[in-house]
Amino acid sequence: MAGKAEALKKCFKDFSQEARELYLDRAVPYLDQPPIPLDFYRRWVAPNKPCIVRNAFNHWRALSHWTPGYLREKVGSKVITVAVTPDGYADAVRGERFMMPEERRMSFSSLLDVVEGKVEQRGVFYVQKQCSNLTEELPELEGDMEPHIPWMSQALGKLPDAVNFWLGEEEAITSMHKDHYENLYCVISGEKRFILHPPTDRPFIPYRLYQPAVYRQTADGGFEVEDQMDAQKVPWIPLDPLVPDLVQFPDYAASAPVSCTVRPGEMLYLPSLWFHHVRQTQGCIAVNFWYDMEYDIKYNYFQLLNSLSGMAG
Amino acid sequence: MAGKAEALKKCFKDFSQEARELYLDRAVPYLDQPPIPLDFYRRWVAPNKPCIVRNAFNHWRALSHWTPGYLREKVGSKVITVAVTPDGYADAVRGERFMMPEERRMSFSSLLDVVEGKVEQRGVFYVQKQCSNLTEELPELEGDMEPHIPWMSQALGKLPDAVNFWLGEEEAITSMHKDHYENLYCVISGEKRFILHPPTDRPFIPYRLYQPAVYRQTADGGFEVEDQMDAQKVPWIPLDPLVPDLVQFPDYAASAPVSCTVRPGEMLYLPSLWFHHVRQTQGCIAVNFWYDMEYDIKYNYFQLLNSLSGMAG
Repeated sequence: MAGKAEALKKCFKDFSQEARELYLDRAVPYLDQPPIPLDFYRRWVAPNKPCIVRNAFNHWRALSHWTPGYLREKVGSKVITVAVTPDGYADAVRGERFMMPEERRMSFSSLLDVVEGKVEQRGVFYVQKQCSNLTEELPELEGDMEPHIPWMSQALGKLPDAVNFWLGEEEAITSMHKDHYENLYCVISGEKRFILHPPTDRPFIPYRLYQPAVYRQTADGGFEVEDQMDAQKVPWIPLDPLVPDLVQFPDYAASAPVSCTVRPGEMLYLPSLWFHHVRQTQGCIAVNFWYDMEYDIKYNYFQLLNSLSGMAG
Repeated sequence: MAGKAEALKKCFKDFSQEARELYLDRAVPYLDQPPIPLDFYRRWVAPNKPCIVRNAFNHWRALSHWTPGYLREKVGSKVITVAVTPDGYADAVRGERFMMPEERRMSFSSLLDVVEGKVEQRGVFYVQKQCSNLTEELPELEGDMEPHIPWMSQALGKLPDAVNFWLGEEEAITSMHKDHYENLYCVISGEKRFILHPPTDRPFIPYRLYQPAVYRQTADGGFEVEDQMDAQKVPWIPLDPLVPDLVQFPDYAASAPVSCTVRPGEMLYLPSLWFHHVRQTQGCIAVNFWYDMEYDIKYNYFQLLNSLSGMAG
């Protein structure tokens, strides 16, 4: 058995090396202009490669207007859903559990009080609800931006499935995962820091099954862990790319992470199935557009890679 | 070892089944109009799917003019390269060899004499030289068509690498193989019959190494086989999809061939890395455009599949 497993691992390494030699960039490239739809599709979407587009939403009022003061005035009284955790990790492996955040309902201005340090609260706060929360919870802000990215909608031949609003604290971290979406991630203020892995790194990225659990606020403002005993175990990535445990996950050493920082006015094209880990500066505001991916040959190949990764491992 | 090899085969079957369930068509679809470049790229090139385009070159004079009479008049005296074999199989496995045709230099009108049955010659004749032979050997015919397919060139952002002219006998058969090109295959007269396999069928398609050899004409007009002893062995597909030997190649039963007939005025988009076996009616004339493929994530995945297919045995 060891022979075949080793041969499989060798195939994966050759595969990943060929990816880097043939078409992957060593750093995320910049486009200085919003692209022509066909060019963008051919150069980035079809080959499933990330890039950062500059000057793509200079005309949005959001870029100059979305200060805390403006947001308090415009949506301060709106009640939104905020992910709250004791340590900044929502939807992440903590110990032997897959920990989900407390979903606290609070007014936008109380959230800003926390983010701006005007009140002290235990826990780390992050507006990260990915259910098109911008259009669902904050429709008053839609006028400050475009409802979609025209060249992307034309390139993909469809409109986005979701438009999400992100605002959170510096300690809030999104653990490594992937999405079934073509993602355009627009930073309005502050900075987002991404660690990215191409789907071809799948064999080097560990998955385990974890018991799901949710944080609950206690009477004294602390947190308790509530196991979701009825829920199925969740496959998630235990590895932290900031401090990868190469003793437990030696295969990760063969992977090829790429880091990038997305600054105000910049838009990251994060292709479907790319693994990503995200950090941010305090109070960073961002908007992202999720376009459903195509379940075509690339997805098909990725699913094979998924099965094979399980076999080797 | 058997356990892993079996597990690998199971992965391949699931992979191929998912391909059919998710995105492959059961028959090659028809487009009734030449497409818009972006649509064509997104719908067919990016997902690597074949289709037949109708009404795409109605305006070529070739379609109405390329009769034997016209061709004799226009290029009858031109000397061209014709592949001649005793059995119609050029570049194919015959017995234990990879047999290449005799490359006979003859005038276009002598070739037409053979194809039209005006003279009798031993062997099967096929103009199939794939070195842009239309532009290289028959530039007089270029004016009867377009030098490239504008919507395809725009979709791919490049011009074709080669434009080939095909004319041959009914017995001439192109054995199963794949090319590193996006291929637009335009039938001018007669019919071409294709058997196609998606690249995801690679694990079910056998390859073996064969000693290359060439046919030579003998003094009496027959053929002899000349082994190319100095040449490296050639990996080729021994399987004949017309009469697949499922005893020798049982895995082929899991494959998903699709057949199609391309008629005068129709253009087959044959995507890169699709396996194809081709037959034709007597005297069928065709022109094809080879656009270099992108060596991107799909190619990368295919190479992995190639290595894994070898492993599974």
